[in-house]
Amino acid sequence: DDKAAILEVLSLQEEAWNNYNIELFMETYWKSDDLIFYGSGGVVKGWEGTLNRYKKSYPTQEHFGQLKLVSNEVSKIYDDAYMVMGEYHLTRSVGNSNGIFMLVLKKIDGAWKIIADTSCKTE
Amino acid sequence: DDKAAILEVLSLQEEAWNNYNIELFMETYWKSDDLIFYGSGGVVKGWEGTLNRYKKSYPTQEHFGQLKLVSNEVSKIYDDAYMVMGEYHLTRSVGNSNGIFMLVLKKIDGAWKIIADTSCKTE
Repeated sequence: DDKAAILEVLSLQEEAWNNYNIELFMETYWKSDDLIFYGSGGVVKGWEGTLNRYKKSYPTQEHFGQLKLVSNEVSKIYDDAYMVMGEYHLTRSVGNSNGIFMLVLKKIDGAWKIIADTSCKTE
Repeated sequence: DDKAAILEVLSLQEEAWNNYNIELFMETYWKSDDLIFYGSGGVVKGWEGTLNRYKKSYPTQEHFGQLKLVSNEVSKIYDDAYMVMGEYHLTRSVGNSNGIFMLVLKKIDGAWKIIADTSCKTE
């Protein structure tokens, strides 16, 4: 069902990240100039901008570290749009990072893609 | 238009909060058991639960303080669903509080209501 397919997107993110495969990781995002990434650094618009932000914030494999995503809530907005609230836990030699996120996903051409990602470091 | 009406919801929140009127503040939220509030304390489900969380986190007028909301992005998900990314700035004698939020709003019975609120303190 939809929720399982959406949790699969989180699993794909986790797996790609932990393999230091930013290209595969970025496939979970809507490849559009309207993609929105929002964090304490402000709004980043577009898929390319989001990729560049990741590259800048996580310049080496040590910065990537090992990612664990926890889903706390998956909820329908419309038939083809869901939101996910969860936690990220990054274990790494350059310092751990933990926070929460809220995603909005839409089914685009048959595949669930993240159209908005708000992430916030909590510790 | 829609974006103006949605920003009006934020203005209403600000005004109600700054008048220490939690009842009016809560009118901006969908009065449903499916309302979701998400923060570093975890997921709170439902309008009543969200009200109780506010009452617990902000027990006195001093805890309310003066709220300033800044909208950084208002973006359509579907015709009757939008998301808003913004900042909150709380100035108060018991200690200021600043953070970011992401809202999802839906037009319900002709009025824009917050159906999900993810908030995260950044400083």
